[in-house]
Amino acid sequence: MIGTMKTRKTLLGGALVALAAGALVAGPAQAEVSEETAFVFNTLLFLIGGFLVMLMAAGFAMLEVGFVRTKHAAAICLKNIALYSIAGIMFYLVGYQIMYGGETPWFGMPAVWGPSELAGDAEISLETGYAAASDWFFQMVFVATAASIVSGTIAERVKLGPFFIFVVVLTAVIYPVQGSWEWGAGWLDSDFGFSDFAGSTLVHSTGGWAALAGAILLGARTGRFGPNATPMVPSSLPLATLGTFILWFGWFGFNGASQLAMGSAADAVAISQIFANTNMAAAAGVVTAYLLSMALGGGKANLAYCLNGALAGLVSITAEPLTPTILEAIAIGAVGSVIATFGAKFLEAVRIDDVVGAIPVHLFAGIWGTMAVPLTNSEASFFGQAVGVGAVGAFVFLSSFVVWLILKITVGIRLSPDAENVGGDLSELGHPAGSIFAAIDPGKPAAPAE
Amino acid sequence: MIGTMKTRKTLLGGALVALAAGALVAGPAQAEVSEETAFVFNTLLFLIGGFLVMLMAAGFAMLEVGFVRTKHAAAICLKNIALYSIAGIMFYLVGYQIMYGGETPWFGMPAVWGPSELAGDAEISLETGYAAASDWFFQMVFVATAASIVSGTIAERVKLGPFFIFVVVLTAVIYPVQGSWEWGAGWLDSDFGFSDFAGSTLVHSTGGWAALAGAILLGARTGRFGPNATPMVPSSLPLATLGTFILWFGWFGFNGASQLAMGSAADAVAISQIFANTNMAAAAGVVTAYLLSMALGGGKANLAYCLNGALAGLVSITAEPLTPTILEAIAIGAVGSVIATFGAKFLEAVRIDDVVGAIPVHLFAGIWGTMAVPLTNSEASFFGQAVGVGAVGAFVFLSSFVVWLILKITVGIRLSPDAENVGGDLSELGHPAGSIFAAIDPGKPAAPAE
Amino acid sequence: MIGTMKTRKTLLGGALVALAAGALVAGPAQAEVSEETAFVFNTLLFLIGGFLVMLMAAGFAMLEVGFVRTKHAAAICLKNIALYSIAGIMFYLVGYQIMYGGETPWFGMPAVWGPSELAGDAEISLETGYAAASDWFFQMVFVATAASIVSGTIAERVKLGPFFIFVVVLTAVIYPVQGSWEWGAGWLDSDFGFSDFAGSTLVHSTGGWAALAGAILLGARTGRFGPNATPMVPSSLPLATLGTFILWFGWFGFNGASQLAMGSAADAVAISQIFANTNMAAAAGVVTAYLLSMALGGGKANLAYCLNGALAGLVSITAEPLTPTILEAIAIGAVGSVIATFGAKFLEAVRIDDVVGAIPVHLFAGIWGTMAVPLTNSEASFFGQAVGVGAVGAFVFLSSFVVWLILKITVGIRLSPDAENVGGDLSELGHPAGSIFAAIDPGKPAAPAE
Repeated sequence: MIGTMKTRKTLLGGALVALAAGALVAGPAQAEVSEETAFVFNTLLFLIGGFLVMLMAAGFAMLEVGFVRTKHAAAICLKNIALYSIAGIMFYLVGYQIMYGGETPWFGMPAVWGPSELAGDAEISLETGYAAASDWFFQMVFVATAASIVSGTIAERVKLGPFFIFVVVLTAVIYPVQGSWEWGAGWLDSDFGFSDFAGSTLVHSTGGWAALAGAILLGARTGRFGPNATPMVPSSLPLATLGTFILWFGWFGFNGASQLAMGSAADAVAISQIFANTNMAAAAGVVTAYLLSMALGGGKANLAYCLNGALAGLVSITAEPLTPTILEAIAIGAVGSVIATFGAKFLEAVRIDDVVGAIPVHLFAGIWGTMAVPLTNSEASFFGQAVGVGAVGAFVFLSSFVVWLILKITVGIRLSPDAENVGGDLSELGHPAGSIFAAIDPGKPAAPAE
Repeated sequence: MIGTMKTRKTLLGGALVALAAGALVAGPAQAEVSEETAFVFNTLLFLIGGFLVMLMAAGFAMLEVGFVRTKHAAAICLKNIALYSIAGIMFYLVGYQIMYGGETPWFGMPAVWGPSELAGDAEISLETGYAAASDWFFQMVFVATAASIVSGTIAERVKLGPFFIFVVVLTAVIYPVQGSWEWGAGWLDSDFGFSDFAGSTLVHSTGGWAALAGAILLGARTGRFGPNATPMVPSSLPLATLGTFILWFGWFGFNGASQLAMGSAADAVAISQIFANTNMAAAAGVVTAYLLSMALGGGKANLAYCLNGALAGLVSITAEPLTPTILEAIAIGAVGSVIATFGAKFLEAVRIDDVVGAIPVHLFAGIWGTMAVPLTNSEASFFGQAVGVGAVGAFVFLSSFVVWLILKITVGIRLSPDAENVGGDLSELGHPAGSIFAAIDPGKPAAPAE
Repeated sequence: MIGTMKTRKTLLGGALVALAAGALVAGPAQAEVSEETAFVFNTLLFLIGGFLVMLMAAGFAMLEVGFVRTKHAAAICLKNIALYSIAGIMFYLVGYQIMYGGETPWFGMPAVWGPSELAGDAEISLETGYAAASDWFFQMVFVATAASIVSGTIAERVKLGPFFIFVVVLTAVIYPVQGSWEWGAGWLDSDFGFSDFAGSTLVHSTGGWAALAGAILLGARTGRFGPNATPMVPSSLPLATLGTFILWFGWFGFNGASQLAMGSAADAVAISQIFANTNMAAAAGVVTAYLLSMALGGGKANLAYCLNGALAGLVSITAEPLTPTILEAIAIGAVGSVIATFGAKFLEAVRIDDVVGAIPVHLFAGIWGTMAVPLTNSEASFFGQAVGVGAVGAFVFLSSFVVWLILKITVGIRLSPDAENVGGDLSELGHPAGSIFAAIDPGKPAAPAE
């Protein structure tokens, strides 16, 4: 069946039971939420969640453009708006049916997806509990998030065209296949009780694994490591800060609407707890990263660590934003922030170049968040969580590695040394990112401010 | 009657019929949406749609400030926040009653509009189906969009004061008069079955025609065309990218809430389809513009074309975001993107200077979107659509031309050559746009980044 | 009782009466909003309002980073994301229970707050009318606003660490204590009928008084006043403009969701009026400030005044956004804008250095808005309003002054002259704000743009 997510089954099921019980047992019928009202509430939740997550594409774009050097800024902007677009189109043409259809699309199924009901229908079935297109919209914006994560890690040296081809495969096949194992009610769900509420593993780690494969095959930016390493000065941390705030804002949709239903008081209570926990895990991530960066920096704080601390807190709570108390959410976010901070140090030590720190934030903290689910949710087990983390990781890393490798051998994935030196703006696009970016000589790092 | 839009009549009518049918025929009464619940849902839709569209003012501001040269950036910011403010005030004082009141305000009517019910009323009539002030709020933010479009085209050479006077006339009279023909249940609606769901013609083309009239009378920026033309380097394409994402985000409110009702499952289904179609038309616009800019640019892509491709896709789907399938929405957006791309080339060829490309995006793609309605909506006809496009175009262009001409003759509309050379920031405002903008020598284009 | 705000009692009470009346008197039962549906609506209002107000943290950050000089930009970003995080954590650990619990937390109460119902509960009591965590989330984002206001005034010279300690005290104790007097159903509410719908005094003036105390004890930035004063060129007014638009956007949540209920037509009507009034007060603030800045600037407008005019209009309408007509809202916003404009001149005259103009906007316009309540709301009195303004002002200013003074004496609150000269980015953080910021020589003001 299309659109049968594990969490939906469980939770909406609960709501339906409550509704039925109410209709039979409770006081006056008018105290309940009517079936059609619940349909509107559930649909509205998907739509609000969807537009919030859609704006995360802007958040990722601003985060990445702020972290890269000025000579790549325009290419990064194009990359982000195009990857969001490609992700949606491919998920529509192929991915959604792989993930939720239980079959390979185009083989024995209609070529493209269409909603099961239309606004003009004389009678709309209320049984699904929500408008099919609203669910599709909400699932679609998620896949773009995974693609955005890849983009950030491998910025400043990947060629645009091959990157877009990778996004096509990621969003049409890789993401949907692993997603079908869990949210598509597949074997991870049924056989191992794997639990990933809003996607610490299915979305964030998936993006992280795909990024890691690309980063290994691409190699680091010229001048990033080694004896002749030069500082890689980001173009604009205020834009990166704005991006982080926008991501935080969008995460209320990401986690909150993953409750998948709002048509009962129980659902409303659940979404409220999710909002509170999501916010507090991020807040704890910021404060933890601030204190840690002070300790590591000899009393001087580091803004990039604080921004990634917020994101690490958010990723950590995404696997289970509902069952923790606020205090537990704070702890989960704080640990995630520590993991992301030292994870970034670790990647540097092994000379894997991750421009925005997406692997520590989305992969490392994503694993942590997934493994932490059993701490507060008794229905999950450490074994089941480990199976899910391992299976998704192995599949996504290996399949991504193969795709990147084929691209490397055939069309090449890395900018030429000249193109990298000039920057993506002039080598891949025909213009700089604007005069306030172009005015910075990209051949040497910007002069420190004194 | 105030607030009788065609689409509302049709669709809300449908919902009310469904409600009535439900009450009389269907199963248990509690399966339906109660009248008061529907009232809250409908009002909530206007409010959510309204705040999303309101943020589009920020999107337009960032788009425009990113596209202009640094020496005009502060003036552009002031222009955008002031035009949004003026538009709201004038639509309140005059425009709303012209558009929906069926009469000229201040002549035989109360001087200013007030909602038909107040929160303190002992009994609120549920018959209208929504709170009057929520509808007013939603309509108000639309008129600001039309004014924003004008702003972008004629940037960098128009004087602030006369521009604001034009905005007063546009939002108090021009926009409301043509709007009354269709959404005010006027002759375009009743006699020709003209169909414009969320305003490809009524909002976007209107802004485009008014911009075209201004651009012709203003002339191009000094140095834009001719043998001594110099590159006009935009200040910050990352800000323009942010603006595009914000506009895309806001468009879910623009199109989605133009369903005008959310109090039934049928409405919820419709809004969901609108969300999906709106997103996919924009995505198709981006991908199309990317490929096209590569082809036209000798293998180098162009970010500005991609941003305008997204917007052209959005404008194209705005006339009918409900009836197309997702695949049709992709096609409509892709064609709109092609039209906007070549439209920009055409304007350059005829030496009309459109700083942000607003005319190709909002006028050309707006016409396309309006004429494409009969392709998927059998209730519309090509003839009726052509009459609407032509009538609105003729009226808005001519009346705008007259207003701009009067302003040109009386107070002048163009910055002096000195003021234009110095830039709007120092000539119209008393200060630069900030040190990272002022540091760029505005007398010559910024050095390319190598 | 936790969560008993005055306005909630009144308005939700009204809604409940209407519900009861409906159940007993009105036509068919299905015309009403069921109790559980109202619960979902009310909760949804808090969640939507909460995420909108959350984004205001990004708005304050962009406003402040745009107004400061480039050498402080990264420190400002860190300050803003950290203060939002700290505020949430402290309000959770201590503040919320002081404000709404009627008791000092940790003395005779559970150490930390927890919601009164959980999503897993077999039965959720609908009596409160909303999910406890949604109310908590909404209240939490408000306290961050107060802390953001302080940040803006004392930028560019305060040390980060002591500022964060002040935020701890402000959000854990000072804000909640004064808040308990009114929204916690305390003496200002019960004995004086003080009325402050969404917090002109309780949030905005509170932030302003705390900022004033800090500004006095810190002193002005070096070179701000006196014979050797040099211009303090802001880094990026386009970012400040973006911040203002985001704040305006978030304010619909700030004021609209302060209705505290959406489960009836009366509430929906009220929220709609609040949206319209909030928008128009801001619009009037912009237009007024534009005209005023032209008059004061010899025909040249000033963008900063227009941005602060919008915010002053918003602050002014916050004490009573419901009872004014739109025309009255316009007048209230316009007067607030005048007050903020001349208030900024006054602060300059008495040599109090307020980097972003937060005191004129949030304190002066906040007092105006609070005193203007009786003009449109007959339930409020000028005497009661004056008592509230005076009591809150005296308490917040004196307690803040004492805290700042203790910090000054013990750890010091001001950057050393060297650190201030180098800028917060390099002295407090270990890095500049990015190459487009670092490229500006911070030792001298940026060259004017010609």
